[in-house]
Amino acid sequence: MSATRVPVVEKILSANDAIAAEIRAQFDAAGAVALNLMASPGAGKTSLVERTIAHFKGECPVAMINGDTSEAAFDAERSQRAGAFSVHINTGGKCHLEAAMVRDALRHLDLTQTRLVLIENVGNLVCPSSWKLGAHFNVLIASVPEGDDKPYKYPKMYAGVDVLVINKIDLLPYTDFRMEYFRRGVETLNSGLVSFALSCRTGEGLEAWFEWLRSHLRPLGARMAGEQ
Amino acid sequence: MSATRVPVVEKILSANDAIAAEIRAQFDAAGAVALNLMASPGAGKTSLVERTIAHFKGECPVAMINGDTSEAAFDAERSQRAGAFSVHINTGGKCHLEAAMVRDALRHLDLTQTRLVLIENVGNLVCPSSWKLGAHFNVLIASVPEGDDKPYKYPKMYAGVDVLVINKIDLLPYTDFRMEYFRRGVETLNSGLVSFALSCRTGEGLEAWFEWLRSHLRPLGARMAGEQ
Repeated sequence: MSATRVPVVEKILSANDAIAAEIRAQFDAAGAVALNLMASPGAGKTSLVERTIAHFKGECPVAMINGDTSEAAFDAERSQRAGAFSVHINTGGKCHLEAAMVRDALRHLDLTQTRLVLIENVGNLVCPSSWKLGAHFNVLIASVPEGDDKPYKYPKMYAGVDVLVINKIDLLPYTDFRMEYFRRGVETLNSGLVSFALSCRTGEGLEAWFEWLRSHLRPLGARMAGEQ
Repeated sequence: MSATRVPVVEKILSANDAIAAEIRAQFDAAGAVALNLMASPGAGKTSLVERTIAHFKGECPVAMINGDTSEAAFDAERSQRAGAFSVHINTGGKCHLEAAMVRDALRHLDLTQTRLVLIENVGNLVCPSSWKLGAHFNVLIASVPEGDDKPYKYPKMYAGVDVLVINKIDLLPYTDFRMEYFRRGVETLNSGLVSFALSCRTGEGLEAWFEWLRSHLRPLGARMAGEQ
């Protein structure tokens, strides 16, 4: 059975990648930068999203795509309250977003209204890493109370991302998290990674994350140039 | 495409349930109680397992089945160091254990040597809830820093378990976790749930968990009666 399973999975993933490439082209044409935010449940994806939306509200309204395994749109509602315009994707029980879901969601988002798109994936450290969504940056949000062994236990996720956010650093004094051990694990898997240590609760370290994001926002002119 | 997908999934799950029933019969014949431990990555499955193995070492050696998405057997090694005899399952990237994997693992475990089997599932709050493994109790380990909204966001997992462990209560003073809001969400989904609030780090609350486990351990005579 497993002998026939693998090629089928590969075929599905390659169809997914083709759709992801279309999506990327759509973002580029609109002059928008897109981030695929992945994390374990409870690492603080939604809190980081809220902070980011609120920070950029004045200069650049954020477009949000929130992936959830059910009809309940808690995260999308939180994003909207924070000031984003957002679309909720119900994955129907699937534990990850796929490019086709994002393509459908994009039909409901006016990309000319934004320069920053945040895609909040389903909380899961396994499957989302296999599915490209057309984002410019794949971002992993880790959190201190999850433990410093996570890069060693979920190597595929840590190896496949471009940016790492270590959230909840305000809990460092109350846990056994060894930052050096954690960073050593990350370094072995993914040495070119951009990383941020911060706390969405206290605000510590958020400024560097905002600055990095701002450096990737395209000037409004970029969008103009893309329009024929 | 989704019209043909659903029946296939149902067929796979029903084949899985048949194997799970065989596994349950195997546990019962051996007089062993089995627990399927599920949680988000970093909630403290392995820490609870270590504490439990160490506690029961004298009276009842624990048999461990550790599910991991890769060849790296960190959890199985931690279980062995704590005093269990254990088998590591590499799910080959799959984000959950399936009954067939547990059946294979059981070929390497001598159930006559134990009365307590702990199955540590892959860290994931979505898929493991769909796959029965033949365990007598499905146990969810939640943790305080994950946030009090998890029952609302992962209802299927919370609705489908028999036992809930709320770990890391030592972090309550340093987070915004509202125990009442959390419990209200759980109560709505699963009112008959047995639950424990504890900290594997400080040891607080562990005694009640051990007592509950002990009350379900069958006397050695139960195994004798099962033998023909």
